[in-house]
Amino acid sequence: MKQGFLALILAAGKGTRFKSEKIKVLHSLAGKSMLRLVLDCVLGLKPQKVYVVVGIQKKEVMKEAQSGKVEFVIQHKQLGTAHAVLAAKNILRKEKEKDVLVINADLPLLRPETLRPMLICHRKEGNSLTFLSAELENPTGFGRIIRSGDKIRVVEEKDATPAERRIRTINAGVYLFKIKDLLAALPKVSTQNQKGEYYLTDIHEILAIQSKKVGVYKTKQAGEIFGVNSRYELAQATEVLRQRKIKALTKEGVTVYDPSTAWIDLDVKIGADTTVYSSVIIEGNSVIGRQCRLYPFVHIVDSRVGNRVKILSSTMIEESVIEDDAQLGPFTHLRPKSVIRRKAKVGNFVEMKNTVFGRKSKAGHLSYLGDCEVEEDVNIGAGTITCNYDGKKKYKTYIKAGAFIGSGTELVAPVKIGKKAYIGAGSTITEDVSPGSLAIARGKQIEKQRKVRKKRKK
Amino acid sequence: MKQGFLALILAAGKGTRFKSEKIKVLHSLAGKSMLRLVLDCVLGLKPQKVYVVVGIQKKEVMKEAQSGKVEFVIQHKQLGTAHAVLAAKNILRKEKEKDVLVINADLPLLRPETLRPMLICHRKEGNSLTFLSAELENPTGFGRIIRSGDKIRVVEEKDATPAERRIRTINAGVYLFKIKDLLAALPKVSTQNQKGEYYLTDIHEILAIQSKKVGVYKTKQAGEIFGVNSRYELAQATEVLRQRKIKALTKEGVTVYDPSTAWIDLDVKIGADTTVYSSVIIEGNSVIGRQCRLYPFVHIVDSRVGNRVKILSSTMIEESVIEDDAQLGPFTHLRPKSVIRRKAKVGNFVEMKNTVFGRKSKAGHLSYLGDCEVEEDVNIGAGTITCNYDGKKKYKTYIKAGAFIGSGTELVAPVKIGKKAYIGAGSTITEDVSPGSLAIARGKQIEKQRKVRKKRKK
Amino acid sequence: MKQGFLALILAAGKGTRFKSEKIKVLHSLAGKSMLRLVLDCVLGLKPQKVYVVVGIQKKEVMKEAQSGKVEFVIQHKQLGTAHAVLAAKNILRKEKEKDVLVINADLPLLRPETLRPMLICHRKEGNSLTFLSAELENPTGFGRIIRSGDKIRVVEEKDATPAERRIRTINAGVYLFKIKDLLAALPKVSTQNQKGEYYLTDIHEILAIQSKKVGVYKTKQAGEIFGVNSRYELAQATEVLRQRKIKALTKEGVTVYDPSTAWIDLDVKIGADTTVYSSVIIEGNSVIGRQCRLYPFVHIVDSRVGNRVKILSSTMIEESVIEDDAQLGPFTHLRPKSVIRRKAKVGNFVEMKNTVFGRKSKAGHLSYLGDCEVEEDVNIGAGTITCNYDGKKKYKTYIKAGAFIGSGTELVAPVKIGKKAYIGAGSTITEDVSPGSLAIARGKQIEKQRKVRKKRKK
Repeated sequence: MKQGFLALILAAGKGTRFKSEKIKVLHSLAGKSMLRLVLDCVLGLKPQKVYVVVGIQKKEVMKEAQSGKVEFVIQHKQLGTAHAVLAAKNILRKEKEKDVLVINADLPLLRPETLRPMLICHRKEGNSLTFLSAELENPTGFGRIIRSGDKIRVVEEKDATPAERRIRTINAGVYLFKIKDLLAALPKVSTQNQKGEYYLTDIHEILAIQSKKVGVYKTKQAGEIFGVNSRYELAQATEVLRQRKIKALTKEGVTVYDPSTAWIDLDVKIGADTTVYSSVIIEGNSVIGRQCRLYPFVHIVDSRVGNRVKILSSTMIEESVIEDDAQLGPFTHLRPKSVIRRKAKVGNFVEMKNTVFGRKSKAGHLSYLGDCEVEEDVNIGAGTITCNYDGKKKYKTYIKAGAFIGSGTELVAPVKIGKKAYIGAGSTITEDVSPGSLAIARGKQIEKQRKVRKKRKK
Repeated sequence: MKQGFLALILAAGKGTRFKSEKIKVLHSLAGKSMLRLVLDCVLGLKPQKVYVVVGIQKKEVMKEAQSGKVEFVIQHKQLGTAHAVLAAKNILRKEKEKDVLVINADLPLLRPETLRPMLICHRKEGNSLTFLSAELENPTGFGRIIRSGDKIRVVEEKDATPAERRIRTINAGVYLFKIKDLLAALPKVSTQNQKGEYYLTDIHEILAIQSKKVGVYKTKQAGEIFGVNSRYELAQATEVLRQRKIKALTKEGVTVYDPSTAWIDLDVKIGADTTVYSSVIIEGNSVIGRQCRLYPFVHIVDSRVGNRVKILSSTMIEESVIEDDAQLGPFTHLRPKSVIRRKAKVGNFVEMKNTVFGRKSKAGHLSYLGDCEVEEDVNIGAGTITCNYDGKKKYKTYIKAGAFIGSGTELVAPVKIGKKAYIGAGSTITEDVSPGSLAIARGKQIEKQRKVRKKRKK
Repeated sequence: MKQGFLALILAAGKGTRFKSEKIKVLHSLAGKSMLRLVLDCVLGLKPQKVYVVVGIQKKEVMKEAQSGKVEFVIQHKQLGTAHAVLAAKNILRKEKEKDVLVINADLPLLRPETLRPMLICHRKEGNSLTFLSAELENPTGFGRIIRSGDKIRVVEEKDATPAERRIRTINAGVYLFKIKDLLAALPKVSTQNQKGEYYLTDIHEILAIQSKKVGVYKTKQAGEIFGVNSRYELAQATEVLRQRKIKALTKEGVTVYDPSTAWIDLDVKIGADTTVYSSVIIEGNSVIGRQCRLYPFVHIVDSRVGNRVKILSSTMIEESVIEDDAQLGPFTHLRPKSVIRRKAKVGNFVEMKNTVFGRKSKAGHLSYLGDCEVEEDVNIGAGTITCNYDGKKKYKTYIKAGAFIGSGTELVAPVKIGKKAYIGAGSTITEDVSPGSLAIARGKQIEKQRKVRKKRKK
């Protein structure tokens, strides 16, 4: 766009059909709120500035829409779309010669590539108002656009006659206005309708009386005109976004075995030749490298995974880093701030938390490493537990390179296991162990005849 | 319905295409048997009495259909639908002035709201017989209804000509009869057809000859006329019921991220603002509260979950109770009769069985608590195991308020850990521990040079 | 087919749109490579011999297509389909009187039943060339077949005019040739097209000039004409194969609760009356018996499961054998070479590796059995760990019939636990235990006042 324009996102309403304590536009689709999706689409058009009209739960909305180019306008009561625009009156007055894009924040499927030609059309035709429209198979929920000759009429669904409801050309709720004409018309909008609200759509009639030019831009991307008014529609829109995301990933060389069960948040990145099995969930800002294999029932949240990493089934990873050629799972749980170094292996029923796990080290079975620094080539036996908490404070455990921790060992922190030290199976280690030495802390084996057992039974 | 009517559910046949040892109508869809679904639909019409015609596996069928309003009629041989109705002859004779609804038990998608207008139509038109019909896209498997002028003809698919098979108006297998006319016509039904069976559909011709009025009620809910004849159709019908269920939940304010992978049994209840992630399974009579979060791969069976409960991924819960604000998982397993009190936390690789786990208590890692009573504010260290079984009997473990169980501890039941007692890590506790005291039971740590290891290798 | 014919599978190209280091036809769909699927389809037609034209990654392709009836032809450069056939010139020369089926290896949905009538048609019509064709809803990506009177013309999509692109009759890329006519025509194919390649499709014009008969066999199985050119199409084709597989299983009496989330590889076998829950993954050559129940999030790879086996949720089984009436899970992990004998029970957070687990034996909780031989009626307590690795070598553990291993026990291998021996909870067993005796190896319990704890805090 050569000439700058403003954008106004309407995000003040509640969305009562959601029956939620959280307002509608804060609900999320594949990791992004509805509001954020619309905002990102609008920012993709490179407006001069974006104003978000907030009202109910304004603090949360403002937090969600935070961005350099965004400012907020408060609408104290929710009395309709025109009333929402009125709230921005003072801002609009300063930019009278420009255009403003007005958009509802409940249209999460719109892409900038779909709105850009609308902007071009608006300017080329010199309209005072341009509607975004489309031909929908199922127009329910949208206002209908009715043309008779040169005249355009918009009827809200609630006010439409049965005949009008059969019309499939809809008003998407996205408008481009010449600001000065909008400002002139706004005060004339009335509340003569079923709901007693100020409708933005009434402005086209006021503009028509004033002989201003009103146009309709009809997009072929009808699938993107999807207003989310219920939680079921939220799920349907999410499905569209998810498939869009998965299609994009497959184009970049990712294999997704089953697009219908893989859940990959919109901001996730995945490298080429990585294979995502059925029923894998990747959330948040996760980044997965090349040639990885993510097996079924893996759940990754906000983590970085290197190249050629294998994550076996039913593994859960949160806010952690896995370096190249490591292997995890099945049934591994990495809690936040864990780092798995190159070629390390972590196996089943192993939990790590705030732990750095060294290069080529192994922890294969039934272990808990918390607040731990493990160097390279360490072998953690099955059933190893760091006792990092004494009921009051947390302490650290250090395990130096090449150490061997026998199975069934408790390491009572704070404690240091020296380089190449060897801990006998079944030990409870409470003191530091010197490098190269063997430490054992367990009872001696004794054997008796089985009468003992009978005694017990009394 | 002002006037009472009877209902007759045909559930005597095997359903050979299922290739099952269990008869067809006992197979379940989202937690309910086909028979139960049809029975519940019929009961929704408030009939005076329901008779279920049983035959093969009659004991199991009778158990499944048990209900105050239900009685059973035994059909010793399965010789067709008319033969099934004949089995109820003696009962029908006592209610000659009433109507009877006859329905096959393999129509699990029908809803009472769809059958009610059929009843009204039957009475208003004063019919001796009313067929339930619909226009199906794919009529395969159903008999076809052919009208020529006033005359109605029904052809079973097996007896239909190719031209007749192209007709899409079908006989759903649901009939309303004036009982006295039905009884008069029944003895005249013959077995002159390909299968040599007594077809209920022949009755309309007999009634026509007798100048009785035969009508067709055609429903617009064609999707509900879905006869389940194979296991693939069973899965298809299940999908319809599941989506119906999920739609209903979303209307009540539940967020279901991915309706295609969430499996929620028909009787499950969920409170508003609860979020159900992708690939969550909730079975049986489970009740989930408000504002809960159920993360991926969670599996809940017959359990009660309070409000604001978080259940992290890959957690399995059976016949247990979780109170408000508790947190479970990931990888928690609650076996039957576990109770998790308010604000308690149970973490990864922790199993509980027949255990009450107190308010604000924590069991974070790799533990097994069986037959246990844990009071409030208890800390269960990683790797804690209750040894509740000695090879002969099971014993109980009591852990009093504020106790701290060090990691890697075995508690050999029966045993009591006193209030605020502290167990050192790595202990095997065989005797009761007094309140406020510290108990330790482990070997002393010794350290040697690593030659020891070389010895081992010999 | 009375008379023998040859088959030529074109598998030399890369498939650049896959952006993969592996060539396209080696990518897999539900456990079988695209190439293997096409090869199996062709072998189903019982050709005399199959030649696979290989080029890029020929070693891997040859390995994948290994089979008694298959030989390989190397195409050194990839210069088009006709060029690929030319590579087989010497072979074809020896069988001049026969027919050859030429097929691209990227048509994984074709079934022999669909190609067989094409062969019959080719012979009956005495064609020199027969095209496989179909009417597609979306013909994008395929060449179009254009008939004008008797004349047939094929236009590659890249060379097609917009009008030609609207034609929906496509060339599937499957041809039957009289070998002698093919050989005569091949040298005349030119590279006069947009891509500068030798197109096999040009041959029909050469044959027409020579007054040879060219025919088109149009199949009604249009859904099988699905050329896989991108990873998204790979996923789409996989979905078709999966549903075909699941439909076949349900016909044999398997209940699949949710066909959209169950992933069952094409070679898997399942017995009647087995129930597969939602989100179950079965891979490779697994064989599942009758009347089993596979619960959600179960993942089975290359394993044999007997009859009436219950596998509870989130269980992972690799290359193992489970005998009749055993029960596993939830959260069990069987690593390769595990054998679970009849009626044995393995519970949560239990891992086995290279272990035989005896009849009616139980390992309910949090255990690791590696390199173990467990006889019948053994009870493995919670938290039992076989220490099978000392940092250098792996050793075996033997547990004889009727032994009872107390909870929290480490068994330091090599070690033998005698018949009906009893190990006290919390023991570290380093020496063999005699039959019938009780062994204990743990520290004595002592109790102190809680000052101790305060000391620690300093």
